[in-house]
Amino acid sequence: MRMPSCAPVAGLPERVTIYEVGPRDGLQNEKGVIPTHIKVEFIERLGAAGLQTIEAAGFVHPGRVPQLADAESVIEGLNLDADRHYPVLVPTLSGLDRAFSCGVRDIAVFGSATETFSQRNLGRSIDESLAMFAPVVKQAREAGARVRGYVSMCCGDPWEGTTPIAKVVDVATRMMDLGCDQLALGDTIGVGTPGHIKALIEALAGAGIDVGSIGVHFHDTYGQALANVLAALQSGVATIDSSAGGLGGCPFAESSAGNLATEDLVWMLEGLGIETGVNLEKLVSTSVWMARQLGRTSVSRTLQALAGPEALYHADPDADPATAQR
Amino acid sequence: MRMPSCAPVAGLPERVTIYEVGPRDGLQNEKGVIPTHIKVEFIERLGAAGLQTIEAAGFVHPGRVPQLADAESVIEGLNLDADRHYPVLVPTLSGLDRAFSCGVRDIAVFGSATETFSQRNLGRSIDESLAMFAPVVKQAREAGARVRGYVSMCCGDPWEGTTPIAKVVDVATRMMDLGCDQLALGDTIGVGTPGHIKALIEALAGAGIDVGSIGVHFHDTYGQALANVLAALQSGVATIDSSAGGLGGCPFAESSAGNLATEDLVWMLEGLGIETGVNLEKLVSTSVWMARQLGRTSVSRTLQALAGPEALYHADPDADPATAQR
Repeated sequence: MRMPSCAPVAGLPERVTIYEVGPRDGLQNEKGVIPTHIKVEFIERLGAAGLQTIEAAGFVHPGRVPQLADAESVIEGLNLDADRHYPVLVPTLSGLDRAFSCGVRDIAVFGSATETFSQRNLGRSIDESLAMFAPVVKQAREAGARVRGYVSMCCGDPWEGTTPIAKVVDVATRMMDLGCDQLALGDTIGVGTPGHIKALIEALAGAGIDVGSIGVHFHDTYGQALANVLAALQSGVATIDSSAGGLGGCPFAESSAGNLATEDLVWMLEGLGIETGVNLEKLVSTSVWMARQLGRTSVSRTLQALAGPEALYHADPDADPATAQR
Repeated sequence: MRMPSCAPVAGLPERVTIYEVGPRDGLQNEKGVIPTHIKVEFIERLGAAGLQTIEAAGFVHPGRVPQLADAESVIEGLNLDADRHYPVLVPTLSGLDRAFSCGVRDIAVFGSATETFSQRNLGRSIDESLAMFAPVVKQAREAGARVRGYVSMCCGDPWEGTTPIAKVVDVATRMMDLGCDQLALGDTIGVGTPGHIKALIEALAGAGIDVGSIGVHFHDTYGQALANVLAALQSGVATIDSSAGGLGGCPFAESSAGNLATEDLVWMLEGLGIETGVNLEKLVSTSVWMARQLGRTSVSRTLQALAGPEALYHADPDADPATAQR
């Protein structure tokens, strides 16, 4: 298999944690319901490929996100004794109860840097959302769980334009004050560029947030995700979100689509001599398998180049036809 | 139209020259012959969108690259009085005669950093190719033309693996010694990663090549092109090659495909506060028009996001059906 050219760069992290979002963020907008056993197999395969943190499910209202309705069954299908983290989305105390009762040890709450998206995504203002998260974070931490706090729309928002850095710092600081131990900066619509990312991380560090507790979640809507990752690495960030095969819907659905592909990320990190623990060949074969389950090709350039069109374009004859619809 | 988030970064070039390769590199592997008037209109539209350097044609053997057989007619169709550069590929003295007789003032020769690709692309060794270029460069410079020297396979080669930096430095130095005034580092198969790019440019500078005379030509085969551009900008490079709409064939044809899309590049440069002179809206409408001429969509993420699927997926009913075949 072709490998990247490799030259380490001084000053970058020696090791990066890839926070894999394919099974949750990547699949949640799929129109056809994906069978639970496929989700479980996807997660187990990703784990076997070396991904140690895999966002596995969301304990949200099943009516709002039908694809996440089988959260309990997905978690119960996993081997939770493995040395891996399977964080799940948990916006409320009832979600936390559901998550804990099936053995979850890592959760994530998800706020917004802008009022408009907060209202649209959570049906409440930023203040109200933080008030909702407060007891969730507190109880989770008291029970020994790790808590990630997403801040969406960190660079721009479809309704409000560019997001002022001060607003991101404000929401991020309040999330950390609630007790989150990791922050995830989401460029939800992918408008960000490297200078903005650098300025944002510097501002957060200036406000007293440890750079080691910052993760970045970039969307590739405008093709900027990997350049933004480079800027984040140069600013000291060592937790990067990505989605196997770039799963996350079509790049045209601007606000929900175009996750950075894990394969493209691994290619760059390997080239930079940064350890990830990921076996690219196993990851590629996992994403090829998943593309066949979904009956369509992947947007990941690395996956396209390494797997070739035959592997990606032809649906697996053994795939469940219920999932092979596009 | 949505615009990138913007934050300048100290130490980057204030202005970048985008060297647009769509009309030549982008179209040369198209299977159907594209009518000359379409190529001319494409180039004129790109110029009107603010691109000031547009590689327009190749004076190579017409039998080897049928798509370039109308080089004279393309150049004769352009307004050469405009304040723009229209470089053309010229490997031999007879090509130079052809180019000069229709008024060309900018040429490019194209060498290789690896012996295998030199043999396959030019039918001669590196030494023999440099001997072939020597009188071309000399005569071109004596006639007042600008000469670009491409060095292909700068990061890796499909047959030889990773290309040692010393080999690139050797060929690049000899190209500059012939009299080239610009070097174009081609990562022809797209395997390069940012640290390698940085190391390569530092090595060239260390060998006495002015960074201001270095251009970079990245392919997006593994999704690395824009991150590599960021590394090049940070190393002082201010000439970046790209192809409108990412034209350059399908990403599966590894060695010839996946040019960095000009739209994605402009998005990042605008976001970094770097002047390019390009009007993104006009560029998008040009690439939409070209996608319709070709009867297929574009791989540029920025173009997909800004133009939307309707604009890109539906062939123009007025397009010449001879060109709308895929």
